[in-house]
Amino acid sequence: MADKRAGNLLIIGGNEDKKGECLILRKFIAMAGGRQARIAVVTTATELPREVGDEYRTLFQELGAETVSVLYISNRETANDPNQAAELESATGIFFTGGDQLRLTSILGGSRTDMAIRRAYGRGTVIAGTSAGASVMSDTMIVDGASSDTPTKSTVSMAHGMGLLEDVVIDQHFAQRGRINRLLAAVAQNPYVLGVGIDEDTALAVTRDGACEVIGSQTVTIVDGKAIVHSNISESKRNDPLALTNIIMHVLPAGFGYDLKRRLPYMVRS
Amino acid sequence: MADKRAGNLLIIGGNEDKKGECLILRKFIAMAGGRQARIAVVTTATELPREVGDEYRTLFQELGAETVSVLYISNRETANDPNQAAELESATGIFFTGGDQLRLTSILGGSRTDMAIRRAYGRGTVIAGTSAGASVMSDTMIVDGASSDTPTKSTVSMAHGMGLLEDVVIDQHFAQRGRINRLLAAVAQNPYVLGVGIDEDTALAVTRDGACEVIGSQTVTIVDGKAIVHSNISESKRNDPLALTNIIMHVLPAGFGYDLKRRLPYMVRS
Repeated sequence: MADKRAGNLLIIGGNEDKKGECLILRKFIAMAGGRQARIAVVTTATELPREVGDEYRTLFQELGAETVSVLYISNRETANDPNQAAELESATGIFFTGGDQLRLTSILGGSRTDMAIRRAYGRGTVIAGTSAGASVMSDTMIVDGASSDTPTKSTVSMAHGMGLLEDVVIDQHFAQRGRINRLLAAVAQNPYVLGVGIDEDTALAVTRDGACEVIGSQTVTIVDGKAIVHSNISESKRNDPLALTNIIMHVLPAGFGYDLKRRLPYMVRS
Repeated sequence: MADKRAGNLLIIGGNEDKKGECLILRKFIAMAGGRQARIAVVTTATELPREVGDEYRTLFQELGAETVSVLYISNRETANDPNQAAELESATGIFFTGGDQLRLTSILGGSRTDMAIRRAYGRGTVIAGTSAGASVMSDTMIVDGASSDTPTKSTVSMAHGMGLLEDVVIDQHFAQRGRINRLLAAVAQNPYVLGVGIDEDTALAVTRDGACEVIGSQTVTIVDGKAIVHSNISESKRNDPLALTNIIMHVLPAGFGYDLKRRLPYMVRS
């Protein structure tokens, strides 16, 4: 079985710049080999695969990728098609579009395509995902949850993700949709898990050793619950407000990094 | 000059229950002396003083206050009326309604009424305020700020408050309006100041020794920036995203207290 920490990830908070400098998408191409990049776009999450697939194909070609193929996998039959899996085997970068994270996992989970993605990841192929494509990367993912409300036990709904990154839970469109409370609720369920909230047009680039760097125009919020002293989640009813004390939080813009193993933020440049 | 820490405060996050158990308003009456409570309602913040004043008069009478007077102070002339100030001298509890915090400070600031409130506070009279009436209690208050967006230097606008509570900054309708980012921006400006975000139908009862207790159905979020390691606020431009590391955060429902002096949360009951 592949080491879950073996690969490279670019986790994007959604709504990344596609018209200006395209800093984040450009980073993806660079991570995937620049002019040698062979990109596979997986449109499974979206219900508009043609439009979204075409848009990313054009963008990645303009940004200098050698080849871009779009995999229109929208049901489990296609997910088990050996030709689709083969496309993933030759890719140097795999990109998950936005949409619905449960579409991604329910259509891909356990299929030939899923296995090919896991193998590719283990070999060091860069996996990028935006919005729903970001959420699916963790072992357990957020699928739903009310924004802008007091955190309660029922604030957040979770499901199995694709398991590319262990011991974290990712949320996207983070500041823009006011999602701090659902991230807190997820961390409260198991403070061993690190909460990572990624703003729009912002990404976290994760490398093999668990080092992360923030890229893009906004911020990444880290919610570290390891030092929590009081938590009432086990005894509270579904709609009781949560009690959580001694959460450590970091708000990190570009120029900052975070060490996932040591749970420490650091400056990349001054 | 009165010791700013001398008095008792009930700081309410807005939209407190007025139809059910009225836990928070009942607490106010209890703090103000119960059946001996003499309440003065200050409607300055609202542009609907008659409706709002009548509503609170009825509520406080129903909750058993001995007398309830409503002070319709809506301009500086009335704010300097000795009769209004006299009403405040005899009150055992003063209640600020919601509305606009800048109306409160710009109309009352430095007037006879303001001086009477400060004297009353110094004597131990309970001061309660909801929504805008909560925000004005600190030295420096939040008057405006975008919700649900990445914190930047320009996220939050501040002004002088009424200065009843030192070294804190209060925000209200906190989870409901997704205000974590503007509270973070306020704390980033000076991490010496403690950020206190109060949800709707929730209050923080502050007593003379700086001990606080959470009351109501939702939570109080404490943002403690004293341990911040990295902050880019001084060198950042107005719309650059803020960097803030090592923020300590507590989410406290009823049953929890917070020691403002020692900056420590604690359980009031198990």
